[in-house]
Amino acid sequence: MSKKIDRLKIKRKKKYGDIGDSPGSIHIDEDSLKPILKLYSYNKDEVQESGGRSFESILKQLDHCKTHTHWLQINGLGDKKMLEEIGEHFGVNQLVLEDIVNTHQRPKIDDYGDYFFATSRLITYKDNVLDNSQVSFIVKTDLIISFQEDYENVFEAVAKRLNAGKGLIRIAGPAYLCYAMMDTVFDIYFSLLNNLGDLLEDVEAQLYDNPDKTIMYQAQGVKRSLIVLRRATWPERDKINSMIRDDSALISDEVKVFLRDAYDHCIQIIDMIESYQEITSSIIDVYLSIISNRMNEIMKVLTIISVIFIPITFIAGVYGMNFAHVDPVTNKVLPYNLPELSSPYGYIYCWAAMILITGAQIWFFWRKGWFNKL
Amino acid sequence: MSKKIDRLKIKRKKKYGDIGDSPGSIHIDEDSLKPILKLYSYNKDEVQESGGRSFESILKQLDHCKTHTHWLQINGLGDKKMLEEIGEHFGVNQLVLEDIVNTHQRPKIDDYGDYFFATSRLITYKDNVLDNSQVSFIVKTDLIISFQEDYENVFEAVAKRLNAGKGLIRIAGPAYLCYAMMDTVFDIYFSLLNNLGDLLEDVEAQLYDNPDKTIMYQAQGVKRSLIVLRRATWPERDKINSMIRDDSALISDEVKVFLRDAYDHCIQIIDMIESYQEITSSIIDVYLSIISNRMNEIMKVLTIISVIFIPITFIAGVYGMNFAHVDPVTNKVLPYNLPELSSPYGYIYCWAAMILITGAQIWFFWRKGWFNKL
Amino acid sequence: MSKKIDRLKIKRKKKYGDIGDSPGSIHIDEDSLKPILKLYSYNKDEVQESGGRSFESILKQLDHCKTHTHWLQINGLGDKKMLEEIGEHFGVNQLVLEDIVNTHQRPKIDDYGDYFFATSRLITYKDNVLDNSQVSFIVKTDLIISFQEDYENVFEAVAKRLNAGKGLIRIAGPAYLCYAMMDTVFDIYFSLLNNLGDLLEDVEAQLYDNPDKTIMYQAQGVKRSLIVLRRATWPERDKINSMIRDDSALISDEVKVFLRDAYDHCIQIIDMIESYQEITSSIIDVYLSIISNRMNEIMKVLTIISVIFIPITFIAGVYGMNFAHVDPVTNKVLPYNLPELSSPYGYIYCWAAMILITGAQIWFFWRKGWFNKL
Amino acid sequence: MSKKIDRLKIKRKKKYGDIGDSPGSIHIDEDSLKPILKLYSYNKDEVQESGGRSFESILKQLDHCKTHTHWLQINGLGDKKMLEEIGEHFGVNQLVLEDIVNTHQRPKIDDYGDYFFATSRLITYKDNVLDNSQVSFIVKTDLIISFQEDYENVFEAVAKRLNAGKGLIRIAGPAYLCYAMMDTVFDIYFSLLNNLGDLLEDVEAQLYDNPDKTIMYQAQGVKRSLIVLRRATWPERDKINSMIRDDSALISDEVKVFLRDAYDHCIQIIDMIESYQEITSSIIDVYLSIISNRMNEIMKVLTIISVIFIPITFIAGVYGMNFAHVDPVTNKVLPYNLPELSSPYGYIYCWAAMILITGAQIWFFWRKGWFNKL
Amino acid sequence: MSKKIDRLKIKRKKKYGDIGDSPGSIHIDEDSLKPILKLYSYNKDEVQESGGRSFESILKQLDHCKTHTHWLQINGLGDKKMLEEIGEHFGVNQLVLEDIVNTHQRPKIDDYGDYFFATSRLITYKDNVLDNSQVSFIVKTDLIISFQEDYENVFEAVAKRLNAGKGLIRIAGPAYLCYAMMDTVFDIYFSLLNNLGDLLEDVEAQLYDNPDKTIMYQAQGVKRSLIVLRRATWPERDKINSMIRDDSALISDEVKVFLRDAYDHCIQIIDMIESYQEITSSIIDVYLSIISNRMNEIMKVLTIISVIFIPITFIAGVYGMNFAHVDPVTNKVLPYNLPELSSPYGYIYCWAAMILITGAQIWFFWRKGWFNKL
Repeated sequence: MSKKIDRLKIKRKKKYGDIGDSPGSIHIDEDSLKPILKLYSYNKDEVQESGGRSFESILKQLDHCKTHTHWLQINGLGDKKMLEEIGEHFGVNQLVLEDIVNTHQRPKIDDYGDYFFATSRLITYKDNVLDNSQVSFIVKTDLIISFQEDYENVFEAVAKRLNAGKGLIRIAGPAYLCYAMMDTVFDIYFSLLNNLGDLLEDVEAQLYDNPDKTIMYQAQGVKRSLIVLRRATWPERDKINSMIRDDSALISDEVKVFLRDAYDHCIQIIDMIESYQEITSSIIDVYLSIISNRMNEIMKVLTIISVIFIPITFIAGVYGMNFAHVDPVTNKVLPYNLPELSSPYGYIYCWAAMILITGAQIWFFWRKGWFNKL
Repeated sequence: MSKKIDRLKIKRKKKYGDIGDSPGSIHIDEDSLKPILKLYSYNKDEVQESGGRSFESILKQLDHCKTHTHWLQINGLGDKKMLEEIGEHFGVNQLVLEDIVNTHQRPKIDDYGDYFFATSRLITYKDNVLDNSQVSFIVKTDLIISFQEDYENVFEAVAKRLNAGKGLIRIAGPAYLCYAMMDTVFDIYFSLLNNLGDLLEDVEAQLYDNPDKTIMYQAQGVKRSLIVLRRATWPERDKINSMIRDDSALISDEVKVFLRDAYDHCIQIIDMIESYQEITSSIIDVYLSIISNRMNEIMKVLTIISVIFIPITFIAGVYGMNFAHVDPVTNKVLPYNLPELSSPYGYIYCWAAMILITGAQIWFFWRKGWFNKL
Repeated sequence: MSKKIDRLKIKRKKKYGDIGDSPGSIHIDEDSLKPILKLYSYNKDEVQESGGRSFESILKQLDHCKTHTHWLQINGLGDKKMLEEIGEHFGVNQLVLEDIVNTHQRPKIDDYGDYFFATSRLITYKDNVLDNSQVSFIVKTDLIISFQEDYENVFEAVAKRLNAGKGLIRIAGPAYLCYAMMDTVFDIYFSLLNNLGDLLEDVEAQLYDNPDKTIMYQAQGVKRSLIVLRRATWPERDKINSMIRDDSALISDEVKVFLRDAYDHCIQIIDMIESYQEITSSIIDVYLSIISNRMNEIMKVLTIISVIFIPITFIAGVYGMNFAHVDPVTNKVLPYNLPELSSPYGYIYCWAAMILITGAQIWFFWRKGWFNKL
Repeated sequence: MSKKIDRLKIKRKKKYGDIGDSPGSIHIDEDSLKPILKLYSYNKDEVQESGGRSFESILKQLDHCKTHTHWLQINGLGDKKMLEEIGEHFGVNQLVLEDIVNTHQRPKIDDYGDYFFATSRLITYKDNVLDNSQVSFIVKTDLIISFQEDYENVFEAVAKRLNAGKGLIRIAGPAYLCYAMMDTVFDIYFSLLNNLGDLLEDVEAQLYDNPDKTIMYQAQGVKRSLIVLRRATWPERDKINSMIRDDSALISDEVKVFLRDAYDHCIQIIDMIESYQEITSSIIDVYLSIISNRMNEIMKVLTIISVIFIPITFIAGVYGMNFAHVDPVTNKVLPYNLPELSSPYGYIYCWAAMILITGAQIWFFWRKGWFNKL
Repeated sequence: MSKKIDRLKIKRKKKYGDIGDSPGSIHIDEDSLKPILKLYSYNKDEVQESGGRSFESILKQLDHCKTHTHWLQINGLGDKKMLEEIGEHFGVNQLVLEDIVNTHQRPKIDDYGDYFFATSRLITYKDNVLDNSQVSFIVKTDLIISFQEDYENVFEAVAKRLNAGKGLIRIAGPAYLCYAMMDTVFDIYFSLLNNLGDLLEDVEAQLYDNPDKTIMYQAQGVKRSLIVLRRATWPERDKINSMIRDDSALISDEVKVFLRDAYDHCIQIIDMIESYQEITSSIIDVYLSIISNRMNEIMKVLTIISVIFIPITFIAGVYGMNFAHVDPVTNKVLPYNLPELSSPYGYIYCWAAMILITGAQIWFFWRKGWFNKL
């Protein structure tokens, strides 16, 4: 009978390195996926794609298309050697590599002069599990490298737009691509929030129609998801702000217009999160109040029925006593022992008394307003 | 018996676009209303009105009244082509058009040099549904375009004042008109808050006279409305502040005096919202306390009545036992079996004991103070 | 028996004007009192007083005492024409007049160059009603006008000090008078807070001596009063700060020393309000805990008494059964039917069993610690 | 039986002056103690002490030791005339005198050019009463006056250090003495917090060993003490900050190093207060949870025992009915009336049924897990 | 049966000095451990280690390796004389020595020109006791002294890295060593948080599988640990920020890059703490709701069973009454006394009535939805 509760789980990531590690040390988790590389080399007119599991072939294409802009997409971080090779080839600081691999970074942007490093949280929901993974970007003048923990092709739409070539996407440089991917992350947040909004509506409808304890679990699940989302979105605000205020040539004014738009989206997400948090709290409050009211209602019915029957059951008990009107041994009449029992109308008087008492009680409770709904 | 609960509903809007959409893409929801256009061309001396469903006729009038100031009122956003046409004609950025159509914007103002773009939330309450729609304004030196999602003529009073022509309305430029409409939105908030205030007073009166669970639902409804209002009003503050601090020629110092007044109204609204939130919380607290007290009172009565009857019912039970004073088979007298039953005054002693026990209990409870109101 | 609860009421004011009203429109509420005017014209040496219901006579005295400083005290705002006349005569902005009449302003100060406009909230408590009315001041170089909603002579003490003429009151200009009246408003807050403090002490004493539900109502009443006071005091802080930082000649450095003193008072009031809020919360928490404890104590007694009697009542029930030891029809002895009843010591064994069970239960409950106070 | 609750009391002070008082008016409370004066005149080499109840003798010594630095310690504020005399002699502003006497000031520092005025809150705990009195300091180039409400010699240790003459105390001027006294006040806070920490540990130990309602009262007492302490400490922070940032010659850089140390102490106190507040809340939460669990445990036992006996008591009731197997009048056998009673094994079957039902219930409750601890 | 609760204890430290102590006075707690000294003298090429309990031998090595950089590690603070000797030898302010010994400092950095003084909180968890001790650092151009309260070798990993000599550790000066130790402290926080995260997961799993009161205690334990951690981490943020913004030559730009990394770690820790706090609150909420639901479920079963049996037990009571159908004395038939008992089918009618009542009740409760799970 008890409904199966599909409790939301939040995927837990391992490991923050060991105590006293030197800074910049790269720890690859054993479960990490091996990297799959994909390189998009594009200019205004064309896009060339190549990929695979080795960095060699990528290097070849980079060499070949020297005047193109490049987007190197890396899915899977499970190869320490390759990452260090990439880091060395593109002149990336060891601390950055550590941040790419240690996938617990808050969204942030670090400007290293000739390149900047940015991270975002990618929050996806599948089969009741909320997965909070990390995407990182290294952006140079003619190159963007994107790092992702798993093989999910979340930036497919960006690749399509790149292939289609409409708008600014092939013209506005790697920072625009970075913006486009960040905005895709926001779109994923929006879609997640939409799902949570639908869920909250369902929960609320159930709350008024047929409240049961799944409401508590689901509301808590939503709450936990919102906590995760908020932790991912708040630092995004500062990050985009930093990008807009950045003076370096890496982020052109053209891109900043779009970053301002992304900033608005970010604020909107935060707003929705806060609204949903307040709605969730309100649902939990109403739920607790409903449950408490229902219990009270049930208890009240018990109270009233019990209290009505208790005195009359006592009366029945009194006249069920066996005090002997006639002594069984001597046969002497004992006139003071339960004379009511031999009264011709005793039984009728007894019922009359019981009905009277019941009526008096009902009248008393009615006057007290106990028959009203709480 | 159970009172019908008219639970407040908040109209939910669809859709935040798809994942990975390019910025500036316009998605028209299928349910969107087709636009109705209305053009007011005015100068110090006269107001010309025209309107309809096509942009052609509007263009004609714009051409005709070149020295006038124009107010183009657009109700309904369900025509992608027309909006793009309007955007192109007036030189409006694609991102602005996206914000006009994607009606989930927070109140904000974006200055684009030769025009500014502003949005407000229009919150109306009808038939237990709170509708949170968007109005947007594009303000140029001699033109204001107002966009609204539906056909509600909320700015009727502004149009009337324009026709009447008193005060600054025809002189102070489109920014004044923008101010007038924003202030109208605030007037709508005030009137909504007045209704909520009346509702809170009713709820509070009921709370002390006849508390039932509708109080919880209504208080939660008010709470939710206040959340929506607060989310709409807080960003208004920053928005008006930006407008007051704006250096562009679009907002004259004359208008800024009025904006300061609007700012005061905005703060006053926020103040009222916060007061009402505290009152709502206090009502909920008192309600929960009353309910709990009432339940406790009922439970106490049960306790006392039960505890009074339980021992005497037991006594009645004892003397209802059938231990044989005379063995039914051998007819031997068994003197230790319930001798009380054959005592001449047994029944009277029994009542005496029961009355004594009851009295003792009542005295005990009275001394404990259990007969006092909780 | 039920104690009459004198629930605190907060006087509700009407009306925020109509939707779409043009700014500066003056709405006089029908209930508004007709203005009573009083003019104090003073210089270092003397004070001249005159007054009445018409502005004519005031104008005459103003004309007559051109070198004096004037304090025009207006009680009652129910005359639109007169207010507009006054506004025009003294060159007051239409928006200021609107703020004077629309008595929902937060405390604020607006500097209009040759005069400044300030408002404060006057919070008085009479007959269980908290009245939150508005006082406004217009201060020019040699004139101060004070506006009050009702006829209460709250500034009597200031008038007396003016008549006495000690200290700076006749020398330091109208801004000092404005300060003196603001400080009087703070004195009223202090006295109100003193009353609330006394009330809290009474409530707390009752809480530990004889808690009942009036505590909840009174604590909530105090809470509501504190909300009103806080909303009135917080903006005062900013207001006085603005006055101290004001550069205009209207507020002399001499007066600013006193304003700093008023600022300290304001902070002290906020401090007291916050302390009282925390005390109120703490009282409510303790009250709820006491009530819950008391109910638990009562329930525990029931539990124990019930549980003690339930098994022995069952035993009495068993030996009250009528299984026939002798078949009433055939008179055959049925030896397995309740043989205990014909045992010579059956009744005594039965009591022994009942006493044993009761003792075992009491021992069990005692060992569990259920006889201790919760 | 009920443990005596030593509820913490907070000494309440009277009076905030009357409504409309002119600024700077000095109100001496009738209960105020008469001042006792003590003058320490010191230079690098010696300390001269004198004292008494009259200001005359003090003046004499001041005159006599013109090149010394002076510390005038005033305990008790109950002499308006003397205070005004002192004020006049040292050129102290009337508003400062008012603040000295009106002992509700928040900690603050006011710089008056040739002297500064500082106040601190002296919070002491004795016999379950928390006394929150005021100490004030007037610091000039070669003089410090300390004012205290009562005769408690809290600055004894400072006087001793002055007599001992080690360190900077005789060299670094009156501001150092002011710092030393402020730091003594902090030491008193630390010692109070240490006591509260010990109390919290006791309460927590009791919470897990033997929770009863004294926990609630004591936790609330701690909470109230912490509120008082926090209100005293928060403004100290700003005050010390002001002193450190002060440019006047009254506070030398040498002293500022020590003030920075005092600032750290102040932050540490605030930290401890906040920690203790969180611990107190946590204790209250655990207490409420324990109480609720215990009640639930008791209720569960009742439930199970009741529910086990209710059906079998009913069965006993059924076979206690008197339906006549043989009509008492006609002696006709009525075979359908309770034939079980004349069945030879009726009683045994009856017991079998009762045992079965009991067993079924116990099995049901056990399967439901109701025998586990909550 | 009752599970042993291993309640988390927080080690409490003694003593904040006495009231009125002069600043800079050093109080050694009697329990303090005697210092063990260890000196690492290193340059780019080699590391020399020496140590022991006397400062003499240290001085000798310092003298011997004049061009080396030194790390003097002091474990145990229980020797006032030695500390003063060290302070004097290295020119350390008396107030700094006081802060080293009074181990209640918040994390902070004080710049004294030619050296800086920094403290961190070292929080370790062992055998259910959370130990919050202090580590302090004095950093000069070619020397770092680290002070620790106990003998735990927490900086072993740093010493190993120094011996290995990879990276910047031997080149970047004492500030880098200070950073490395601070980062080690953060690593310890991370590992503690990881343990708390595992514990929270266990608690949450238990919450849904088998909730009992240990959940409350464990959640409170986590809460308390998080409070301690947060108090240690928040000031770290400001401290690192100060270090990054420091202009002195003591902290090179090279080290500041690493400090920025440490800052990110610090923010990450704060983020985790806040997440865990929210999760803990959510666990407690769900726990309370589950407990309440379970009690309600149990109470509901009682209610239903009781209410079903109460009326039929009353009926059984009625027909257990002994009203005499035939007067035992006169043998007169009393036809109105319980005629049902002599009705041939009385017993069957009686059962029919009881079954009917039971069925009606079950139907009523079912219709009310009381058989559904709450």
